[in-house]
Amino acid sequence: MASLAPSPDAPNPALEAQAAILARPATEERRMADAIRALAIDAVEKAKSGHPGMPMGMADAATTLFTRFLKFDAADPRWPDRDRFVLSAGHGSMLLYALLHLTGHAGMGIEELQRFRQLHSPAAGHPEFGEHPGIETTTGPLGQGIANGVGMALAERLLAARFGKSLVDHRTWVICGDGCLQEGISHEAASLAGHLQLEKLCILYDDNNITIDGDTGLSFTDDTLRRFQAYGWAVRRVDGHDAAEVEAALTWATRSRKPTLIACRTIIGFSAPTKAGTAGSHGSPLGPKEAEAAKSAMGWNHPPFEVPEGIRERWNAAGRRGAGTRRAWLKRLAKHPMQAEFERAMAGKLPESWHEPLAELRAKLAEEKPKLATRVSSQKALEALVPAVPEMVGGSADLTGSNNTNVKGVPSVVRGNFAGRYIHWGVREHGMAAAMNGMALHGGIIPYSGTFLVFADYMRPAIRLAALMRQRVIHVLTHDSIGLGEDGPTHQPVETLAGLRCIPNLVVFRPGDAMETAECWELAVKRADGPTVLALSRQNLAAFRADAGENRCARGGYVVEEASGPRRATLIATGSEVGVALAARAALEAEGIAVAVVSLPSWELFAAQDASYQAQVLGDGLRVGIEAAIGFGWERWLGSDGLFIGMHGFGASAPAEELFRHFGITPEAVAAAVKKRLG
Amino acid sequence: MASLAPSPDAPNPALEAQAAILARPATEERRMADAIRALAIDAVEKAKSGHPGMPMGMADAATTLFTRFLKFDAADPRWPDRDRFVLSAGHGSMLLYALLHLTGHAGMGIEELQRFRQLHSPAAGHPEFGEHPGIETTTGPLGQGIANGVGMALAERLLAARFGKSLVDHRTWVICGDGCLQEGISHEAASLAGHLQLEKLCILYDDNNITIDGDTGLSFTDDTLRRFQAYGWAVRRVDGHDAAEVEAALTWATRSRKPTLIACRTIIGFSAPTKAGTAGSHGSPLGPKEAEAAKSAMGWNHPPFEVPEGIRERWNAAGRRGAGTRRAWLKRLAKHPMQAEFERAMAGKLPESWHEPLAELRAKLAEEKPKLATRVSSQKALEALVPAVPEMVGGSADLTGSNNTNVKGVPSVVRGNFAGRYIHWGVREHGMAAAMNGMALHGGIIPYSGTFLVFADYMRPAIRLAALMRQRVIHVLTHDSIGLGEDGPTHQPVETLAGLRCIPNLVVFRPGDAMETAECWELAVKRADGPTVLALSRQNLAAFRADAGENRCARGGYVVEEASGPRRATLIATGSEVGVALAARAALEAEGIAVAVVSLPSWELFAAQDASYQAQVLGDGLRVGIEAAIGFGWERWLGSDGLFIGMHGFGASAPAEELFRHFGITPEAVAAAVKKRLG
Repeated sequence: MASLAPSPDAPNPALEAQAAILARPATEERRMADAIRALAIDAVEKAKSGHPGMPMGMADAATTLFTRFLKFDAADPRWPDRDRFVLSAGHGSMLLYALLHLTGHAGMGIEELQRFRQLHSPAAGHPEFGEHPGIETTTGPLGQGIANGVGMALAERLLAARFGKSLVDHRTWVICGDGCLQEGISHEAASLAGHLQLEKLCILYDDNNITIDGDTGLSFTDDTLRRFQAYGWAVRRVDGHDAAEVEAALTWATRSRKPTLIACRTIIGFSAPTKAGTAGSHGSPLGPKEAEAAKSAMGWNHPPFEVPEGIRERWNAAGRRGAGTRRAWLKRLAKHPMQAEFERAMAGKLPESWHEPLAELRAKLAEEKPKLATRVSSQKALEALVPAVPEMVGGSADLTGSNNTNVKGVPSVVRGNFAGRYIHWGVREHGMAAAMNGMALHGGIIPYSGTFLVFADYMRPAIRLAALMRQRVIHVLTHDSIGLGEDGPTHQPVETLAGLRCIPNLVVFRPGDAMETAECWELAVKRADGPTVLALSRQNLAAFRADAGENRCARGGYVVEEASGPRRATLIATGSEVGVALAARAALEAEGIAVAVVSLPSWELFAAQDASYQAQVLGDGLRVGIEAAIGFGWERWLGSDGLFIGMHGFGASAPAEELFRHFGITPEAVAAAVKKRLG
Repeated sequence: MASLAPSPDAPNPALEAQAAILARPATEERRMADAIRALAIDAVEKAKSGHPGMPMGMADAATTLFTRFLKFDAADPRWPDRDRFVLSAGHGSMLLYALLHLTGHAGMGIEELQRFRQLHSPAAGHPEFGEHPGIETTTGPLGQGIANGVGMALAERLLAARFGKSLVDHRTWVICGDGCLQEGISHEAASLAGHLQLEKLCILYDDNNITIDGDTGLSFTDDTLRRFQAYGWAVRRVDGHDAAEVEAALTWATRSRKPTLIACRTIIGFSAPTKAGTAGSHGSPLGPKEAEAAKSAMGWNHPPFEVPEGIRERWNAAGRRGAGTRRAWLKRLAKHPMQAEFERAMAGKLPESWHEPLAELRAKLAEEKPKLATRVSSQKALEALVPAVPEMVGGSADLTGSNNTNVKGVPSVVRGNFAGRYIHWGVREHGMAAAMNGMALHGGIIPYSGTFLVFADYMRPAIRLAALMRQRVIHVLTHDSIGLGEDGPTHQPVETLAGLRCIPNLVVFRPGDAMETAECWELAVKRADGPTVLALSRQNLAAFRADAGENRCARGGYVVEEASGPRRATLIATGSEVGVALAARAALEAEGIAVAVVSLPSWELFAAQDASYQAQVLGDGLRVGIEAAIGFGWERWLGSDGLFIGMHGFGASAPAEELFRHFGITPEAVAAAVKKRLG
C-alpha cells in the first residue's frame, strides 16, 4: 500500500463544494471577502512566495469577525481595550495584512502589500510583532498563537479584576489551523484555558483537512471538538463560507460561559479552480493562470492590487466601527480613579518607588550576609518586589515549593476569581512560557514563571519568540546544576546555560549569592525590552557580597576579590561556583600566588561593556573559568590559553556534594589545576 | 479567595478510602504489592530523598501487570520479543527498581536498592537507560515516556510487518501520571497512536489527583478519558487498588483493536497514615515515623529491605513466568529464514554492503559536481541508503516536500498497514523526536526525521534524551539559515546551531555541498552510539569537492583549498558559507593574499582530532569564521584574535540573496574584512 497522498489525477471533492458555494448569490460580505482573497493572491504572486491558501479559505469567516464582532478602531490600533486578534496560523499572514489594509490602518497601504515578504516591509513573511501596531504577536511557529491568545485572555481577566470592567472588557479571537492543533502546546494552553474558564477567548479553527504533506488524513484523525469539550470548552462546527452560520456562531461565542472553539469547515485556496482543497494552494503562489482563473471564478475583474471603491469604503467603515466605543472608553478612563495607574501599567512603566523595598532588602543582606540557596534569595527579592509592583504576576509549572516563586499572602488565580496574582500553570512549561508572552504583549502585566532550569528546553520555542518580540517576561529557573543532586542527569542542566546564552536578546543571569540575586531581580524587572532568565541554585550558597550600594551585576561581571599583588590568575565563575573560586583563591593566596576572583552573572551585560572594562576585569594572567556546566562558549572570556573547570558531559545521580567532588569542581581541584598550569 | 491548596487542617478524604481498602482481606497479590511499597519506603528513607508516593499508589496495579500480563523473562531482560514496560512517571523509579529486584533480575540486588540515588548505583534518581538492562528508557522529564512508548509500539508493528508475527509479537505498557498527561508531548504522541491505531499499546494512568503543587484541581480539570477517546483510543476507569478490576481491564486491553488508556484511581502514598492522598508523599521521604506507621498499616512487620521468603518466592516465580515463552520463541527464531537478518538488525549492525550504493553516489558526485541544495543532496544520499539499509525508517513533521526526506517508491506507514517505511508524523515535532527515541530503544530500526532546523527547539527535550541515552536517531533539519529567505526570523535559525552543538553526545553536521552531504549521511548511519543532526540548506550550493576517496568529513574539519603561499589567513566555514569562503579566497588570492579555506562540517568530530591536526587545519595566520548564524562558541576555533562574519541577531523576511547582502555575509564582505584586519 503506497502513500495516502492523492494522486494528481484523483477527483477533488472540494471543487464540487466550491462550485456550489460560488453559485450562491454574491452578498456584500462575500464581495468584501473576495477583496481579501484577491489581495492575498496578488501579493503572493508578486512576492513569488507565500501562502495564499489559508487567507483564501478563511476570508469569509474573517470578514464576519472584523465587520461585526471584533472591537477595534483602525485609528488607534493600540487602544488598550480593543479586542485582541491573533493569527496563530501565521503563514496565512496575508489574511492579516489584507484586513489591516482594508480596514484603513495607517502604515499598511497598498504599497506595503506590494512589498509583501521584502526587506523592511511591515508585511513580512509571517506576522512580526513590532512591524505594524496592528500585529498583536509574532506567529508562524505553529501553536504559539493559541497559547499567546490564552495569555492575552488571562491578562484581560486579571486586569479586569484589578481595574474593573469599565476599563477592561474585551475579547481575544484566535484563528488557527490543523497544524496549530497538532502541536503539543495547543494541548497545554487549551487545557489551562478550559480549567480557568476563560470565557472571552474564542478560537476559529480553519478546518480545511489539508496540511503541507497533503490530506490531514495522512496523520490526523482527532475528533477535535470532542477533545476541546474534554478541556471544558464549548464547541461548535459551521460552514466557514456561510456568513450567516459564522455570525450565529460568533454571537453564540460571545454569550458562552466557557472558552469557545468554532470549527469552520473551509476549502483551502477557495476559488482556485484546480488547486482549491489541495495542499497545492497552501505554501506557494498559485501561478499566473490559476490566479487569474481564481479571480474570475469569484467574479473579480480588477487589476492586481486594485479594490473597487465601493468595497473599499465598506471595509473602511468597518475599520471605523469601534470609534464611538473607543471615545466612550476614553471618557470613562479620564474620569476613572485609577486612570494614572492604568496608564502607567499599560505603558510598561514601573511604579515610582518600586525599588525601595528592594533597596531595603539589599541593605539587610549586606548586613546579615545570609547563607541561602539563590532560589530562596529569589523568594526574598520577590517578597520585596511583588507588593511594590502590582503588575507582577507569578506562577510555576507545578514546582511552586521548589522554585520558591510564590510570596506569602499572594492569592492564586482560580476559576471565577482573577483577583489573585499567582498562577498554578500545571506541568505545562511550554504553554506557560507562550501564555506569558501573550500576557506581556497584552500589556499591563509583568509575568514571571518558575520551573527547573533543565526544563527551559520545554519552553524554548516560546523563549525564542519572547526574545524576538523583545517582551518583558521573566523565567525563574531553579536547580541550575549538578547541585540539585540525586534527581540525576535528566534533571541536571549542563548544556542549558550555553543553550540559553546563545539566544539573541535574551539576558541570562546566574547570581552567586543573595545580594547578587536581588541585583539580578532588579535588572530583570527594569529590563523593558526583552526576556530574562534567572538561573538559581537548589543548594545553599555563602554570601560574598557585603556592599549594597552600586548594583554590580548591572555590568554583567566584576571583580569580587582582587589579587594581593599583580595577578597571576583570574578565576572567573558564575553562581554557585563563585564560592568555589573564592575558596580556591584563599588556598592559592596562602601559597603566595596572587589570584583574583571575578563573578560573571550575565554574559550578555558583560559583553555590552567597553573593552577596557572587560580587560580590566578579566585580567592579563591565566584566566580560569569555573562553572558547573559544560564549557561551550567560555573561550570568549578565557582566550585561547585559558583553563575551564566544569562539566564535560551529562551529570549523575548522587548527593550534590559528592557530585561536585566526582566531577572535580572543588576549590582543591581548581587550586591544583591553577598551580599545575602556572608551573 | 486564597489558594486552593488545602490547609494542613483540612480533612483528607483519601484516608477514609484508604482505610476501606486496607480493611479488605489481604490477598496474596496485595502482599506482593506491599513488598514494593515497603522497598520504596525503605530506599527513599535511606537515600533521604526520592519519591515514595507514586510507587506506593501504583504498586497494586503494577503487581497485576507484572505477575499476569507483562511478557518477560528476568533471565534475559533484553529478549527481543519481550513486552516493553515504560515508567513514564520516572520520578517513581523505585516502583521499577523494586519490580526488577523482586522478579529476580541480576544486577538489582538488595544492595543496589540500598544504594538508591547514590553514585554509580544502577538505581539512580530517575530510571537511566544503560544502568540496568531492565530499564527500557530514561524517564523523568514528564511526558517523554508516553511518546517513547508510542515509538516502541510503532517499532513493534513495523518489525512485525517485516519479520512476521512469529518473531515479533509483543505489547508496550506505559505507566504515567497527571504530569505526563499535562505535557504537550502527550497530546502529540497519543494523537498519533490513535491515528495509527497502535492497538498493542496500553497506558496505565496513575489517576491520583495530586501533583507537586497539591490537588490537581489547582490546575487540571481535563476529562482525560474523553480526551483520549477523541484521539481514537479505547478507555476505561478502574479502582487501581482492586486487583480484580485491574486484571479485567488489562485483559480488555489485550483484546482491544485500539490503543488503550486505563485510568487507575489510586491513592498516592497508599498506606501512609497521614500523608496518603497528599502532595506530602510525592517527592520526599515519609520520615521515620510515617514510614513505620505506613508499614504497620499494611501489616508489614519486617525490618527495612527485608522481604519474607514466601513473598520473595512468589515474585521470583513471576519473574520466571515468561521463560517457556522465551524458549519457544528462541526455537522459532532458530528455524526462521530471516534469523540472521533479524539478529543483525536487532544488534544495530549494518548490512554488509550497505555503503556500496553510497560509494557509487559519491563517485558520481565527484564526476558531476552538481549544484544542489544540501536538502536535495540529502535525498540523493537517502536514495542510496534507504534501499540498502532496510532498518532505516524515515519521516517528516509535515514537511516532506521541503525536507526531501522521502524516497521514491517507499510506501508510507498507514493505519492497518505497517509495511511502509515512511511516517507522516504530522505537525508533531516533539512527539516525533521522542517516539523516534522509542523506536531506536526498541531496536531493529534506525529512525530519521525531517523538519526545519529552527524547529529543533520544539524537539529539544527529546534530542537531549537521545544524547543522554546514546541512541542512533538521525534528524534531517533543513532550511538551516537566513538562506530560507522570505519566511523570515521565526523560521530562520540563527542560534540553533550553537544551541545544538552544546548538547553532549550529539553530533551536528552542516555539510557544504553534495559530496559532504553524502559523507555526513554515511557517518550518521554508522554512528551507533548517539544521535546526529544534519543541518541542510534550502538554497542551491555549488560543489567544491571532486574527490570521492576518503570521507573527509569524518575528521570534522579539513582544508578545502590551501593557500598559494604561507597562509596569511584561514577562512573557516560550514555549510552554505564554504562557498562564500571559496569566493572570498579567490578574490584575496587575486590580490596576492595567501588564504586557505577550511570546511568544518562537524565541530564535535573536529574536536576529537589530535591537537596537531587541528593546528594544521586551522593554521597560524588570521582565523576567520564564516557562518550564517550567530558566533556563539566560534572563539574556540578562532582564538582571541579571530574574526567572525555571520549573524549578530535574528534574521529578516526577504529573498535569500538579499538577506546575505543585508547581513554582510558575502565574498566581498569577507574579503574586505580580511584585508582591513591584515592592514
